[in-house]
Amino acid sequence: MNQTGYQLAEIVARFGGRVEGDGATRVSQIATLDCANAGQIAFLTNAKYRKQLEATRASAVILSEADADATQMPRIVAANPYSYFARLSAFLNPLREYAPGIHPSAVIGQGAQVSPQAHIGAHVWIGEGASVGAGTVVMVGCSIGENASIGENTRLYPRVVVYHDCVVGNHVIAHSGAVIGADGFGIAMDEGRWLKIPQIGRVVIGDHVEIGANTTIDRGALNDTIIEEGVKLDNQIQIAHNVRVGAHTAMAGCVGVAGSASIGRYCRIGGGAIILGHLQVAENVEVSSGTVVTKSIREAGTYTGTFPFGENREWRKNAAQLRHLDEMADRIKKLEQQIETLKGRE
Amino acid sequence: MNQTGYQLAEIVARFGGRVEGDGATRVSQIATLDCANAGQIAFLTNAKYRKQLEATRASAVILSEADADATQMPRIVAANPYSYFARLSAFLNPLREYAPGIHPSAVIGQGAQVSPQAHIGAHVWIGEGASVGAGTVVMVGCSIGENASIGENTRLYPRVVVYHDCVVGNHVIAHSGAVIGADGFGIAMDEGRWLKIPQIGRVVIGDHVEIGANTTIDRGALNDTIIEEGVKLDNQIQIAHNVRVGAHTAMAGCVGVAGSASIGRYCRIGGGAIILGHLQVAENVEVSSGTVVTKSIREAGTYTGTFPFGENREWRKNAAQLRHLDEMADRIKKLEQQIETLKGRE
Amino acid sequence: MNQTGYQLAEIVARFGGRVEGDGATRVSQIATLDCANAGQIAFLTNAKYRKQLEATRASAVILSEADADATQMPRIVAANPYSYFARLSAFLNPLREYAPGIHPSAVIGQGAQVSPQAHIGAHVWIGEGASVGAGTVVMVGCSIGENASIGENTRLYPRVVVYHDCVVGNHVIAHSGAVIGADGFGIAMDEGRWLKIPQIGRVVIGDHVEIGANTTIDRGALNDTIIEEGVKLDNQIQIAHNVRVGAHTAMAGCVGVAGSASIGRYCRIGGGAIILGHLQVAENVEVSSGTVVTKSIREAGTYTGTFPFGENREWRKNAAQLRHLDEMADRIKKLEQQIETLKGRE
Repeated sequence: MNQTGYQLAEIVARFGGRVEGDGATRVSQIATLDCANAGQIAFLTNAKYRKQLEATRASAVILSEADADATQMPRIVAANPYSYFARLSAFLNPLREYAPGIHPSAVIGQGAQVSPQAHIGAHVWIGEGASVGAGTVVMVGCSIGENASIGENTRLYPRVVVYHDCVVGNHVIAHSGAVIGADGFGIAMDEGRWLKIPQIGRVVIGDHVEIGANTTIDRGALNDTIIEEGVKLDNQIQIAHNVRVGAHTAMAGCVGVAGSASIGRYCRIGGGAIILGHLQVAENVEVSSGTVVTKSIREAGTYTGTFPFGENREWRKNAAQLRHLDEMADRIKKLEQQIETLKGRE
Repeated sequence: MNQTGYQLAEIVARFGGRVEGDGATRVSQIATLDCANAGQIAFLTNAKYRKQLEATRASAVILSEADADATQMPRIVAANPYSYFARLSAFLNPLREYAPGIHPSAVIGQGAQVSPQAHIGAHVWIGEGASVGAGTVVMVGCSIGENASIGENTRLYPRVVVYHDCVVGNHVIAHSGAVIGADGFGIAMDEGRWLKIPQIGRVVIGDHVEIGANTTIDRGALNDTIIEEGVKLDNQIQIAHNVRVGAHTAMAGCVGVAGSASIGRYCRIGGGAIILGHLQVAENVEVSSGTVVTKSIREAGTYTGTFPFGENREWRKNAAQLRHLDEMADRIKKLEQQIETLKGRE
Repeated sequence: MNQTGYQLAEIVARFGGRVEGDGATRVSQIATLDCANAGQIAFLTNAKYRKQLEATRASAVILSEADADATQMPRIVAANPYSYFARLSAFLNPLREYAPGIHPSAVIGQGAQVSPQAHIGAHVWIGEGASVGAGTVVMVGCSIGENASIGENTRLYPRVVVYHDCVVGNHVIAHSGAVIGADGFGIAMDEGRWLKIPQIGRVVIGDHVEIGANTTIDRGALNDTIIEEGVKLDNQIQIAHNVRVGAHTAMAGCVGVAGSASIGRYCRIGGGAIILGHLQVAENVEVSSGTVVTKSIREAGTYTGTFPFGENREWRKNAAQLRHLDEMADRIKKLEQQIETLKGRE
């Protein structure tokens, strides 16, 4: 009998919900229904996977009230099985801890204030006047610019760069290769040459933000670029200067947001979508993957603009007609007029 | 009375233009019309923002001859207010200086030639035979490959990588995470396996080029990849092997240029655009954001190819018809023939 | 007479094919037909470049049986001139070697196993329990997470990050800025806030994989993200959590693959294409550049979905009609009915 892990009864005591079946059942890890082994707990968040309940080797499962009777195996019935799974997994899989202290190879600038409760890894550089809060982990090779401020309980994975004067909140996670505060793309044409416009704003990142690997967030030209609390950015995203991303908005990988766009709260932006500069996007807007948003969106809803893909020869035939669409519209109009004339004659 | 900053009279003595109103007015910083405070100078580059002149708290404003009388506040009248603003801002906001010298944690290869006037930051690595010119700042954690050459008065922000043998000009700026000279994507299929084609060309970057954060420029397969002088590349751009980017061309974020494409001078490529391999793009071409350029562009002009986005249900109805466009064209043609037949019968 | 390099006779003895003309001809480098100089060997892989044979200054050329008589210059006739060129170039341009050993500035965690035959560059960090195999080169500034495993004869260019527990095979190449194993984008909405879902899977990368600069491959949420042997990934690609990329599939720059997508073997994905989450793509599928794949592809073939670009004014006229496409289809149907009615009346 597996004595590691936690009993279902202990889990519901901590996270709520109720147990059906044997509350003494022990689980030590989360897994998907089809990959779970004994000692693991799976979850059902979509009724269409119900039939996987029969074959799963999991010792228990988390499911909703509606699915509560879909199996007789030991189970936790929860209002929101997906967030229950998230909480339980975070409990079973705590982040690796790094001991407070500054690695001897790190270079700390004059006047920098590093909390004794912070971990500063090998080959980190912290510029003059910068600060790092308690409980924060700055992993190997990060670079924190002069006078930048990193809050508490934040984690910067290896090789994150924060430029001078930028502000990163508490409980923020930034993954490797993220660059926060590089110059925005500000240039002015002057007699055949581009002049650089100094980018003197900052990036200000709220609490509980997550920033994906190799994502870039540019500093503002004059005012700041703002990422509000709870925003979640996936990898390879580009946020240009003076953008504002409203609280709790989530963007999937490879999104590009051009300068001075303002995105509302609780938006969901699909992978590879592009939002042009100076646009406004309302709250609770969902943009489909690959969509190019070319004008402001004033109302909540789902917006899409991708060309339906298909087998190349089919696409080629249809796409060729696209170049004649305006002409086709004219021809239809003319046909309608001719029909009317013909009908009139009878 | 604010005694810091510069009098308008001093500014026009240095940068040209003329003062209207009190030339003794002092300003110490640039700001936008709507965010400026006392002691700051704003600028008006577009007549549609004229009404912001009334409410601004700026001490002065830069504007064009055409707008010279739109306000009575102290002002500088300039031929090109935007480039005037760029110059003045660069004067008021000089780049942070870094003292010449090599940080003790930097590793310098045999035979590398580092100017005594260059700054080499912490944890930098400079390969054998590489060179760094006077006035250049190589910030923390950069890696300069063997025999690479970095010119004078160039600035590499933290964690830039330049591969072996590449050439970076003078007055170049490269932001964090930029990778210059990684292998181009050269592979040959051989009996079910890809063979790697050695990439033995270089990247050669001209003077006054700026390269954004996490932008990548691949070395040539046999010949070089060329970025001509004055090119401005935003973040997250991918320039493939053997591309040539003509002088003073500007590309916004997330652009991808495939192998051996040749882009003319003074082009402007919108964010997320893709230019396919081996294409030619003429001078002074503007490509709209999100456009996929699938054949060469021989004439200056603006080119676009994005699917108009819309509310998802509307898009869905219209997009469904796209698969029938070729058939629709046939039906219109048939209708036209039938109409002609009917008309002929009368 | 050039005494460096290799005689054509020596080359065919090593790589096969046959010499026509003087087998004593010496070549020391590969070049394109139009850029080659004396002492260099060029190659003809496409009959449409045949006329370049007349003007080339190359000392020899590699060509196919079909083109064997297109020139009388010294030449190697090979079944597949392109792969022959790849092999010969790899022979003439061996990768720079780095001596085994650990740079004194590198930081090696407790229990890490680094082969004495591995090269560990300056400012590298290797976490506790990680391993690096013989013949592997870990260049400056790389970060290898705790318990990660790097195989033999693998090369990590400067500033590659491998997160904890990930597995990288043998003969793998990863270019600068690549991030392997960052957290996938797993979040669950819970009472107005996103909860983070721990990403406890790994990334597992097979042998002979190449990963481009600034490409990111996320670790799995519960199960692993899998990159099978021989996969070639260009720069700036995003591979989300739990994706499987089948053996020998090649992806060009800026591709995004969303979570849990499964790509078959020997696929070719064009630059900037997007593949949505949970989709299946069969073997031998080619996806055109810039295509958004929104549903599973069950059969081999070429698939495309880009909007044909054009001069902006033309595009604008045609694109405007796109919003009326559904209505146009209705109007055509109505016209057809009216025509039938009119024809019936006669």
